[in-house]
Amino acid sequence: MKKLVAKGAASLALLSLSALPVLAQDTEAAPAVTPEVAYIFNTLLFLIGGFLVMWMAAGFAMLEAGLVRSKNVSMQCLKNISLYSIAGLMFWITGYNLMYTGVDGGFMGSFGPYSFDPVGGDALDTGYSTASDWFFQMVFVATAASIVSGTLAERIKLWPFLIFTVVLTGFIYPIAGSWQWGAGWLSEMGFSDFAGSTLVHSVGGWAALAGAIILGARKGKYGTDGAVHPMPGSSMPLATLGTFILWLGWFGFNGASQLAMGSIGDVSDISRIFANTNMAAAAGVVAAVILTQVMYKKVDVTMALNGALAGLVSITAEPLAPSVWQAVFIGAIGGVIVVFTVPLLDKLKIDDVVGAIPVHLIAGIWGTLIVPLSNDGASYGTQIVGIVSYGVFTLVASGIVWFILKAAMGIRVSEEEEALGLDKVEVGVEAYPEFGTGSQRM
Amino acid sequence: MKKLVAKGAASLALLSLSALPVLAQDTEAAPAVTPEVAYIFNTLLFLIGGFLVMWMAAGFAMLEAGLVRSKNVSMQCLKNISLYSIAGLMFWITGYNLMYTGVDGGFMGSFGPYSFDPVGGDALDTGYSTASDWFFQMVFVATAASIVSGTLAERIKLWPFLIFTVVLTGFIYPIAGSWQWGAGWLSEMGFSDFAGSTLVHSVGGWAALAGAIILGARKGKYGTDGAVHPMPGSSMPLATLGTFILWLGWFGFNGASQLAMGSIGDVSDISRIFANTNMAAAAGVVAAVILTQVMYKKVDVTMALNGALAGLVSITAEPLAPSVWQAVFIGAIGGVIVVFTVPLLDKLKIDDVVGAIPVHLIAGIWGTLIVPLSNDGASYGTQIVGIVSYGVFTLVASGIVWFILKAAMGIRVSEEEEALGLDKVEVGVEAYPEFGTGSQRM
Amino acid sequence: MKKLVAKGAASLALLSLSALPVLAQDTEAAPAVTPEVAYIFNTLLFLIGGFLVMWMAAGFAMLEAGLVRSKNVSMQCLKNISLYSIAGLMFWITGYNLMYTGVDGGFMGSFGPYSFDPVGGDALDTGYSTASDWFFQMVFVATAASIVSGTLAERIKLWPFLIFTVVLTGFIYPIAGSWQWGAGWLSEMGFSDFAGSTLVHSVGGWAALAGAIILGARKGKYGTDGAVHPMPGSSMPLATLGTFILWLGWFGFNGASQLAMGSIGDVSDISRIFANTNMAAAAGVVAAVILTQVMYKKVDVTMALNGALAGLVSITAEPLAPSVWQAVFIGAIGGVIVVFTVPLLDKLKIDDVVGAIPVHLIAGIWGTLIVPLSNDGASYGTQIVGIVSYGVFTLVASGIVWFILKAAMGIRVSEEEEALGLDKVEVGVEAYPEFGTGSQRM
Repeated sequence: MKKLVAKGAASLALLSLSALPVLAQDTEAAPAVTPEVAYIFNTLLFLIGGFLVMWMAAGFAMLEAGLVRSKNVSMQCLKNISLYSIAGLMFWITGYNLMYTGVDGGFMGSFGPYSFDPVGGDALDTGYSTASDWFFQMVFVATAASIVSGTLAERIKLWPFLIFTVVLTGFIYPIAGSWQWGAGWLSEMGFSDFAGSTLVHSVGGWAALAGAIILGARKGKYGTDGAVHPMPGSSMPLATLGTFILWLGWFGFNGASQLAMGSIGDVSDISRIFANTNMAAAAGVVAAVILTQVMYKKVDVTMALNGALAGLVSITAEPLAPSVWQAVFIGAIGGVIVVFTVPLLDKLKIDDVVGAIPVHLIAGIWGTLIVPLSNDGASYGTQIVGIVSYGVFTLVASGIVWFILKAAMGIRVSEEEEALGLDKVEVGVEAYPEFGTGSQRM
Repeated sequence: MKKLVAKGAASLALLSLSALPVLAQDTEAAPAVTPEVAYIFNTLLFLIGGFLVMWMAAGFAMLEAGLVRSKNVSMQCLKNISLYSIAGLMFWITGYNLMYTGVDGGFMGSFGPYSFDPVGGDALDTGYSTASDWFFQMVFVATAASIVSGTLAERIKLWPFLIFTVVLTGFIYPIAGSWQWGAGWLSEMGFSDFAGSTLVHSVGGWAALAGAIILGARKGKYGTDGAVHPMPGSSMPLATLGTFILWLGWFGFNGASQLAMGSIGDVSDISRIFANTNMAAAAGVVAAVILTQVMYKKVDVTMALNGALAGLVSITAEPLAPSVWQAVFIGAIGGVIVVFTVPLLDKLKIDDVVGAIPVHLIAGIWGTLIVPLSNDGASYGTQIVGIVSYGVFTLVASGIVWFILKAAMGIRVSEEEEALGLDKVEVGVEAYPEFGTGSQRM
Repeated sequence: MKKLVAKGAASLALLSLSALPVLAQDTEAAPAVTPEVAYIFNTLLFLIGGFLVMWMAAGFAMLEAGLVRSKNVSMQCLKNISLYSIAGLMFWITGYNLMYTGVDGGFMGSFGPYSFDPVGGDALDTGYSTASDWFFQMVFVATAASIVSGTLAERIKLWPFLIFTVVLTGFIYPIAGSWQWGAGWLSEMGFSDFAGSTLVHSVGGWAALAGAIILGARKGKYGTDGAVHPMPGSSMPLATLGTFILWLGWFGFNGASQLAMGSIGDVSDISRIFANTNMAAAAGVVAAVILTQVMYKKVDVTMALNGALAGLVSITAEPLAPSVWQAVFIGAIGGVIVVFTVPLLDKLKIDDVVGAIPVHLIAGIWGTLIVPLSNDGASYGTQIVGIVSYGVFTLVASGIVWFILKAAMGIRVSEEEEALGLDKVEVGVEAYPEFGTGSQRM
């Protein structure tokens, strides 16, 4: 198994110099990995990466279900399965083509539903099945939408949230995505974002930030005297489970963003990405654990979880090029960011229920900014242009949608409904009907 | 990577016309994917598909643990891990050979334990490892058995349930399965069920229905005045987690039912199946969400979850042939079916604790019926013959087993035991000993 | 697809006897699976196996979160995500090279951080990507560390536990591992441990045992009169979920320990390993279920779960060679071991909160001992030498570390803190702030 095929090829090459030039030439050129085999490997990469990232939808659902109060848990479950479903439909109806078809240096692609391979199709020239590519790209959109649901939990109405998800996954994300991954203007400028620190995580984070500002904080979260009243999540094990699911899914998120597995170089790069991704997350945890011990004399488990996620978001812009030391550094700073920006947001009275803005937006900016440290092809200037462009576009576009929704139908439940909990008001099914005192407390 | 190997082959073909006919002919015939490589890909497909479907056992466990009341949660966990274990043993002792060996147009295979590959075996002619095939088929049996445990929860005794599972997984399912997937009489008729809307889901559903009728409803579920008393599940996040696990596992369930991955046509078809499967589930969710909003002015999260599952069951009979539009349609109708048949069962006083009959039986019938819409090789008449045959056989066979068990040992706990909860009576371990009021409240 | 390539090769061989000896010879030697394709398959095996075993970290977290009382659940989550992170960092800083580099029949490798492949690297001669190998080996270390956290739960302080984890994952495990998997002295003696019944599970178990003895039992667990006071876990569904996660991950643990997938023999062996692994776990469940019914007239769900895990640990030393009957036997005895040794430990007043010592240590010894039953290359004598060597080394090394930590900083919380629960004392975040009575009870 470990003998080099090159040996056989060499003998053929020798032979080719004498009697059989044409034959030998062609045989020598016969690839060690045929295009058909490479096609299967590439497609398999998208399928495995795709199901791992799909699984992140469950991770967000559990993380958020664990971090909201029990009176809003059913709603958070409902929002998460609904947004994943909407993302799938919208990325087919408009998203994929808006993002990938006919962008060509521009600002968006074309309109119209996407067509998959015909059955039994074998368009070898693409190098992979188009349906597998669609599937893999689709689950990324869902990730962006999941970020929004966490920040706005416990007070946003169901239907405006779902309508916003339609616009985000069908239009805002794909248009923004086309600039870079659709070969649009930012890609031509040389912007670099390997797996989406900015394109996925910051875009989700900006959309969440716009919503949080327009929606306002939960009733009672911020006292008139500047006090911040903690509203502890209902289940730490579910939040932990959600974090582990996301960590697992991230191997697909970053690893399969290599986009090819049909050569030893590609599969080796994917392996490096796995190792670096894990290292950055581990460093994010350790940084957050040490820092909270030093600062607060206790180790807040939610900070450890968000440290892992911030490490993961940070390495996502460039998971391949960094040395292990660099990956550890990038992830650790992600963990530090979380510990400092969670209280900062509270000072600004921006109520982010699950800490999604520090984790996805701020760590996403950090990860994108630091790409040139390890990737010679990137420049700090262009990275900043990209970060700012995505920020302005997503904030403005999301803000407009949120304002329209607010004017048209209202986006926030009433004070009494908020006190009662969304599960009773809009879902009609309590999350834990037999446990504790749910809706009576807080 | 993307250059066609055909080019090299063409040159060889030219050459073959002159000096070296035999050599060239053979070289030209050398496959781009060698049988050995195809064998590895095919086997890998079974292994990946197999572990994804194995994971569905956890999905059913969580779904059911979330949808029963807390006094019966430990029992539901115990039943689920036990039934998965029994399925594995029985599908080796009798199941596999009853289903696949020597059926040949008939009604069942042969008796006896299955033999795996010898160590280091390389029976290239099968195209895949026989142990991988066994593993993949085994996890399907477990799925069928999981369906039964949900419907009959909260009042069936442990041991009759486990004995029924032995018969279902060792005999009923494999015999029924042999008719179609074992190349039996229905397969010769032209019946079509790609991944098991009928063979797995409806069979499980019919067995559950027989049990539900014979076992009777939970005490207090149906008032004498026709009232239906809801008995809400103990944990919506666990039910949601279970649904996401099942959704993830379904990519293995449907995707790996392609049974081969060693060609670009096969892997492209698997990709289509992934996309269609996801689309049907998404459509099932959206349909259930919109419909419950319109009908009840609230969105019941359990309906959204069951909408996803019904969409998945619906597309399982034919996940490859449908266009995306068709997949969306098939899945959406699945979601509609759930919303309408859950209350219908209650009218019939058939007490299905988790909604497994609407999801697996009714949506399974729908999915099987609609195959001819997209698959020209199928006919509505033959589909109906298949659906009815599986229904009659499974209802009768299951009914006989349930009656024997009822006569021999009783299948239902006493009224006091039911009120106390199965966890205290048969398990001796409460699911949540520190929470709430468990056994006092329904 | 199923046509043998050998046919073409045979024609070429015939030809080679006449006109074109060199060419034909080389062409005949051209492998059906080229080294490049084998390299991709091998690396992919490590990546898939690696993410499955990584997922076991979540399994341990959920199992332990479910089996501790609610006042210690946040802490258990924190310990598990922290230990996985520490394992990742330490196995890079010192672990990998200590275990694998320059051992050569000796007792340990070399010191220093590990270096991954360069980007775009293609060191074909290794047969796989070095980063994928590192990733796969790393997740095994984390597994060993997870075992310790369960046994010592509910009374050990956070920081001494984390420091112990640093030493275990960076030094004790890798040094011990080098003896066998690093081609050290035990490997030269002919010791046999395919995937780590001893190297991973017993090593974790010995380290846990040393800690449990030095740390002492939880306050109130053992009465002065010899009574054992049960302290039931807070959530059976989470414990069940954890067990299913571990079961799923074990396919990666055992399957990918084949270390190669680039031939039909290797992938077939992996398939056998999947089947045998599943069979042993199933038998462990069934044995524990039947045995507890007979002995206690109830079926303790935690015994069923631990039966599965004990079956899995038992088959881990040799998951390939056993026939199915042997796999069932090996796993069933694992289940029996759990049922008998859990109460035995209580008699010895060794307080193992989650039953990790019976499952990982005792079943690990059993699995290692029984290897010669199916594997002719192993001898009972050498197996015992290996088991004893790992036991003595790990007990002594762990004991020294635990004593130093006890002397230097104390390893146990105060009685009042233990009564209050670690979540309030060291984490500051309750696991279920709205449910039940958590810290007030027990």
